[in-house]
Amino acid sequence: MSLQSIAEEYRKPTVPISPLFYTRWSSRAMNGEKMTKEELLPLFEAARWSPSSFNEQPWRFVVALEEEEKKKFLGLMMEFNQKWSKTAGAIVLILSKKNFTHNSTPNRCHTFDAGAAWMALSLEGARRGYIVHGIAGFDYDKTRQELRIPEEYNIEAMCAIGKYAEGAELSPDLAEREKPSQRKELQELISWGEFKG
Amino acid sequence: MSLQSIAEEYRKPTVPISPLFYTRWSSRAMNGEKMTKEELLPLFEAARWSPSSFNEQPWRFVVALEEEEKKKFLGLMMEFNQKWSKTAGAIVLILSKKNFTHNSTPNRCHTFDAGAAWMALSLEGARRGYIVHGIAGFDYDKTRQELRIPEEYNIEAMCAIGKYAEGAELSPDLAEREKPSQRKELQELISWGEFKG
Repeated sequence: MSLQSIAEEYRKPTVPISPLFYTRWSSRAMNGEKMTKEELLPLFEAARWSPSSFNEQPWRFVVALEEEEKKKFLGLMMEFNQKWSKTAGAIVLILSKKNFTHNSTPNRCHTFDAGAAWMALSLEGARRGYIVHGIAGFDYDKTRQELRIPEEYNIEAMCAIGKYAEGAELSPDLAEREKPSQRKELQELISWGEFKG
Repeated sequence: MSLQSIAEEYRKPTVPISPLFYTRWSSRAMNGEKMTKEELLPLFEAARWSPSSFNEQPWRFVVALEEEEKKKFLGLMMEFNQKWSKTAGAIVLILSKKNFTHNSTPNRCHTFDAGAAWMALSLEGARRGYIVHGIAGFDYDKTRQELRIPEEYNIEAMCAIGKYAEGAELSPDLAEREKPSQRKELQELISWGEFKG
């Protein structure tokens, strides 16, 4: 079964939308195969076209592809995330530039806009049948230090990208989480006219 | 011409990706037609399935559909944005919940994850031929006060959603900006292995 068909079993949209959105999910069953730059570039290309305040495009990506690089990134993660991310074909650190380039003033939207680019990246990846799994469980300070990220960039998140290992046997704690997650009801997210907590 | 076909004239992806990503652009030529809840729900449904740290789903949307509501939201914007947003079919305020619900600790990713949901919303809108135009040019403090947004929610952005007014005559300053914007080169966004400013 494909990642998409698994999602379709678990997730039922309440109104019709493109399946792209609800068939993307954060599996951890990666096959360990190294990915190529050619396989990854379309994901960043999708991110590239995202909208941003003043078209600043604050998103930046540091990509670990080689074994040594991946080992370094893995070492920054919490133990649980290391366990499954070690089978990723690439690990990506997502940054955002804090100030506007045109006048060096703070860009209020740098994190928000980087989140938009991240979504495009993950959707284009899902479309190609890849797992693109976001990670916030890593040491942000150590990451800044070890990867020498200048203060003018904010560290947003990491993600692991990999090919799906159909039928993989996962350890019990990973296997237990290996299904598409559900969501709040639509009406919990929307207030009409005025904010209602 | 459709919004998508205009984008295809201006934008050439450097590697093949789904046209969904580069044919979405931030036009301001809206036809003034009020939108219905039925037309808008799919956009929020797409946002709903976005990934988030601990599946918190921190995104919230306050939607102005009625004339009185839209007037209130418009009054919070900078003059330039009022000028074109007044022809929107709906105006949406995007919020994010700052703390995790499960343990009330700060959620480092609330803004980033709201950005992801915003991207899904705008892509599903674009897919349906709507204009979904992000807005950061509004008074954030006044918005919190007038729309009574509690401190536990962060104000992220607004967006105007509307139907395309093909052949609309825009004022000269709007007409000048009425074309799909370009992007940085892909290699400016990506560092391989280690960060290179």
